[in-house]
Amino acid sequence: MNKLYVVGIGPGEYEQMTIKAINALKESEVIIGYTVYVDLIKDHFGDKEFLTTPMKKEVDRCMLAFEEAQKGKNVSLVCSGDSGIYGMAGLILEIGQKYECVEVEIIPGITAASSGAAVLGAPLIHDFAVISLSDLLTPMEKIEKRLQCAAEADFGICLYNPSSKKRFDYLQKACDIVLKFASEDTVCGVVRNIGREGEAIEVMSLKELRDKEVDMFTTVYIGNSQTKNINGKMVTPRGYKNV
Amino acid sequence: MNKLYVVGIGPGEYEQMTIKAINALKESEVIIGYTVYVDLIKDHFGDKEFLTTPMKKEVDRCMLAFEEAQKGKNVSLVCSGDSGIYGMAGLILEIGQKYECVEVEIIPGITAASSGAAVLGAPLIHDFAVISLSDLLTPMEKIEKRLQCAAEADFGICLYNPSSKKRFDYLQKACDIVLKFASEDTVCGVVRNIGREGEAIEVMSLKELRDKEVDMFTTVYIGNSQTKNINGKMVTPRGYKNV
Repeated sequence: MNKLYVVGIGPGEYEQMTIKAINALKESEVIIGYTVYVDLIKDHFGDKEFLTTPMKKEVDRCMLAFEEAQKGKNVSLVCSGDSGIYGMAGLILEIGQKYECVEVEIIPGITAASSGAAVLGAPLIHDFAVISLSDLLTPMEKIEKRLQCAAEADFGICLYNPSSKKRFDYLQKACDIVLKFASEDTVCGVVRNIGREGEAIEVMSLKELRDKEVDMFTTVYIGNSQTKNINGKMVTPRGYKNV
Repeated sequence: MNKLYVVGIGPGEYEQMTIKAINALKESEVIIGYTVYVDLIKDHFGDKEFLTTPMKKEVDRCMLAFEEAQKGKNVSLVCSGDSGIYGMAGLILEIGQKYECVEVEIIPGITAASSGAAVLGAPLIHDFAVISLSDLLTPMEKIEKRLQCAAEADFGICLYNPSSKKRFDYLQKACDIVLKFASEDTVCGVVRNIGREGEAIEVMSLKELRDKEVDMFTTVYIGNSQTKNINGKMVTPRGYKNV
């Protein structure tokens, strides 16, 4: 049976891929993905056929992957981070109902929440919520409700897609919601270009984060009430009891 | 400067480690960890010195790692999953304030939320919350508040440490809280022994999950209101808008 691997490639650098992900790509004749992600790994898999589709063409990309697999090829569909967190694993399983002769295997990768946390320090050591600020496929009220509940519950919060040209003030709006429940001194952090050239971190207060300009290559962390700044690193303790 | 790597080794199988994690272990003279995790990787790094400490001795384990590094050795402290998610990265950075001559590097791994999701299908494609049901270091009221807020916000929910001998009814209590906000037909799933011998999944309703017996090697997933059971796989769509 032909194989379709849905592969999370992690933040970008080859070394942050798992052996399992590398093996799947090696076993594939065709590697498919959004242009930017394919470019990140292309040099390491030179002998493969690469097919790319632009952003927002996710359904087309999944169909293409199944069509190629149906031709009798092993295919990898690559996603940045983890294929199962805001990745293509879900769409592939939905669309896969029409392609019963293709065997799908989901291969997880290091998601930005994890890879960014490691650069920032240890912001996600305790319970946390992951929220995307993109309202392309989600109503804004739903996103706002989640921000509110996450802040009310004192979760550590990791924000994906914190900004874009059209959504330049979304991080500010998100911080304003969290500020209703959390102190303006809450320790926060941002990581830019995780695992890629120009990787940079900044640790700051929630008040400062509110006025911070970020881009779409940034992952944002809002600490819980216990999170500390230790020598410029963002660190959340593992519990609320003194031990 | 001596290096102390805090390494997430992923769910257990060697192939789910990243190249970066493997390189850190190769560069280390000493590998330290909780006995069970050290046993998972021992065979692949036969020439190393292995030091183990029992469960609940996390502070001792971190001190031991720094003491060994101070002797002039490169040291890896291994954690299952991701070292930054309920892992040792936080404690190491806290304790590290006393050991300025040791350079710490956090190396992320695939956390159970990701590795389990890949086996179950794609439960975490959209916004989600990760909650540990262990009340060893966290007051139960805090955990209950988080469950309530996560359910109210319609997050996908991933539960770590869902049960133990002493806490045999915690999953039932957690489900009862979620059931105040979510339908009893909400699609849920459990994964046992992720990436290890005896790996098994089960997809069920929230009502069924409430009466499910699980052990400490199980990761539990509660879907959001849109999550579906597709051919026995748990799949969450990427958004709330029809596309």
